[in-house]
Amino acid sequence: MDSALCIDDVRLTPILIADPPLLNTQGVHQPFTPRLVVEIVTRGGVTGLGETYGDARYLGPARALAAALPGHPVTHVNGLFALAEEVGDPAMTAGVDERADAGGLRGAQTAAKLRLSVVSAFETACLDALGKTLGLPVHALLGGKVRAEVEYSAYLFYKWGAHPGGAPDAWGEAVDPAGVVEQARRFDRLHGFGSFKLKGGVFPPEEETAAIRALAGEFPGRPLRLDPNGAWSVATSLAVARELGDVLEYLEDPATGTAAMAEVAAGTEVPLATNMCVTAFEEVPEALARGAVRIVLCDHHYWGGLHRTRELAALCRTYGIGLSMHSNTHLGISLAAMTQVAATLPRLDHACDTHYPWQTEDVVTTAPRFRSGRLAVSDAPGLGITLDRDRLADLHRRWAEDDGRMRDRDDAAAMRAAHPEWTPGRW
Amino acid sequence: MDSALCIDDVRLTPILIADPPLLNTQGVHQPFTPRLVVEIVTRGGVTGLGETYGDARYLGPARALAAALPGHPVTHVNGLFALAEEVGDPAMTAGVDERADAGGLRGAQTAAKLRLSVVSAFETACLDALGKTLGLPVHALLGGKVRAEVEYSAYLFYKWGAHPGGAPDAWGEAVDPAGVVEQARRFDRLHGFGSFKLKGGVFPPEEETAAIRALAGEFPGRPLRLDPNGAWSVATSLAVARELGDVLEYLEDPATGTAAMAEVAAGTEVPLATNMCVTAFEEVPEALARGAVRIVLCDHHYWGGLHRTRELAALCRTYGIGLSMHSNTHLGISLAAMTQVAATLPRLDHACDTHYPWQTEDVVTTAPRFRSGRLAVSDAPGLGITLDRDRLADLHRRWAEDDGRMRDRDDAAAMRAAHPEWTPGRW
Repeated sequence: MDSALCIDDVRLTPILIADPPLLNTQGVHQPFTPRLVVEIVTRGGVTGLGETYGDARYLGPARALAAALPGHPVTHVNGLFALAEEVGDPAMTAGVDERADAGGLRGAQTAAKLRLSVVSAFETACLDALGKTLGLPVHALLGGKVRAEVEYSAYLFYKWGAHPGGAPDAWGEAVDPAGVVEQARRFDRLHGFGSFKLKGGVFPPEEETAAIRALAGEFPGRPLRLDPNGAWSVATSLAVARELGDVLEYLEDPATGTAAMAEVAAGTEVPLATNMCVTAFEEVPEALARGAVRIVLCDHHYWGGLHRTRELAALCRTYGIGLSMHSNTHLGISLAAMTQVAATLPRLDHACDTHYPWQTEDVVTTAPRFRSGRLAVSDAPGLGITLDRDRLADLHRRWAEDDGRMRDRDDAAAMRAAHPEWTPGRW
Repeated sequence: MDSALCIDDVRLTPILIADPPLLNTQGVHQPFTPRLVVEIVTRGGVTGLGETYGDARYLGPARALAAALPGHPVTHVNGLFALAEEVGDPAMTAGVDERADAGGLRGAQTAAKLRLSVVSAFETACLDALGKTLGLPVHALLGGKVRAEVEYSAYLFYKWGAHPGGAPDAWGEAVDPAGVVEQARRFDRLHGFGSFKLKGGVFPPEEETAAIRALAGEFPGRPLRLDPNGAWSVATSLAVARELGDVLEYLEDPATGTAAMAEVAAGTEVPLATNMCVTAFEEVPEALARGAVRIVLCDHHYWGGLHRTRELAALCRTYGIGLSMHSNTHLGISLAAMTQVAATLPRLDHACDTHYPWQTEDVVTTAPRFRSGRLAVSDAPGLGITLDRDRLADLHRRWAEDDGRMRDRDDAAAMRAAHPEWTPGRW
């Protein structure tokens, strides 16, 4: 094969990006959050881009994989999984299994899942480099797009007006139904999103239920979703489902774990979605057998990249499970990757989530533009984006100069800095 | 996107290829069997190759799809499914559902499955054309190979020494254990296959059991498989499983249908494999839920091409189901496609089936060479094969001049021509 497609160098750049004070059941987003930018440079001089979590526990395995990659062809992304497992220093991921935070935002964490999140950025970067080399968009490397636009949903958050001690942001405060509706109006005005998701698990369920009711009143007929990240008991989940059954498109991770989700599902007609109790292939069979979920929110960072996302989609089609897309804080590289793979999926039943409108900083030169909540699928080579090296250097400098406090995202610590007595809400 | 990658022309060439008098539960292979060769020509002047069933009921949908394809990019194989459905003249596939031959060699047939078999050849041809244009092997278009060789199994058949009225072939007769062992020795000598599959359902089970015992005696420790194409009752299947449990790698489709297979599976430790009760995604959930099969024999002609084969493999990995590959009579185009996709599958648990060594005619210029039962995975552009146009023209002439008797494969008719009283064996 053409040696120009062999990897010559891999550059890893951890960065800190500004993040607004968004609230969730684990606390509040810190002023900055870590991401890792992966650049894969081919012998042909083409650079491919990928992006993933930037917390310290991802950096070790990423460095090991980066060191092993020179000489590997960018076409051979199927081989990345075995390679990552082979070179991954067990010490780097030791303890991850023990730190399993089933009640956290990401579901149970394991070393294998962490490795998939690392591989996802390398796979994306390989596909970007391959596409740029061949003059083909990434979607064409995945069998081609079946739609010209991908629909996204507005991702509403309870939030403070400013980080403690910081300046107010443009979005203002949202801690009650009126604030949530105001935020939704702004999303609608700026980006035209057709559906709304509210991140819940922050206030008592009756307050969040009222916020959804207020949204339904303001935007009649628009699909609405509520996601308390597993903060509720089965009884509370069922009560909310009863209360909001007529307006919810789906209820996302109301309770924690497959057993509790199955119990909720058995008691309501409201479809349950998840990006917590099913975040890896090995968790699928039990969840489906127990009827715990009707919609899986895929995320290429979780599942190991774009090819695996397509495999998950095939699995969901086979079992009659709906598909949508989860999002965590991310930049334009991941948004481009999400859009490219979403464009290839035969059935994409619900608008995808994205945090992107909340980010004020990016490492790509041109911000994607939502029109009626949709992104056009780029046909430009690779991911269709260009790295802003100056911006990347700035954001890396921030990471390098950080005293370590924000190198690992810790929403709980940020919350306790403001409210020392705070504990995660459980209802 | 580069318009050189757009489809300019599609050529469909039905052919008749010589086939030896192989026996199965449906009768005997006719002297010739139909195949369809698909050539997709890009505006850039590159031709991609695909191959599928050539019976009349496949030709209509193939012609409709071929007519619709000019202008479509060869990269966009995901779009072939909707296009085939859109253009398929319902009249062309009318009655296919009714003709469902659950007891036949292919499991239940539907118009949708027939369409997938047509699409598979077009998808393969698109990927071949794309690979040739880009200078990349097809496996690199599927994420890259994870192995350098693909292992195949010897496919043993009961057979006559010659077609009625025809000249004896080089393989001779095999109608008893000694003949089967002799055939296996020849396979071993010519191609070095490490495992053996016997197509059963031809003689009473005790004779076929004796043949497997004879193989086990001659080739101790080699994996053995027996496939009666659903010709047995549950009781017979269980009796054979008991009798051969110590030497069988797996028992393939002993009984017909998911319910009967599940009953057999519940009564034996011998793994059951299938290419009959599960030949499409929608048949997977019930079969797995009932524990009917432990190994799925994938076939890109059945499942809709190489991308779908990879999706099936992911599904099997997720559910802990073993994977191997089914084969029907095919030529070198399909063998190359099988090898390319098999090379990309993370887990390929058993040697793949192939009829290829039985064919004496081909439309590719260079016959692939099995070494120790393995084929090296080609890194040449596309499928790594070249069409022999003269040979294709000869074989097409045979098809055109046929009076229609062999344009649709009919093993039962061939058997009844020799033995008018014959009916399919059921034990």
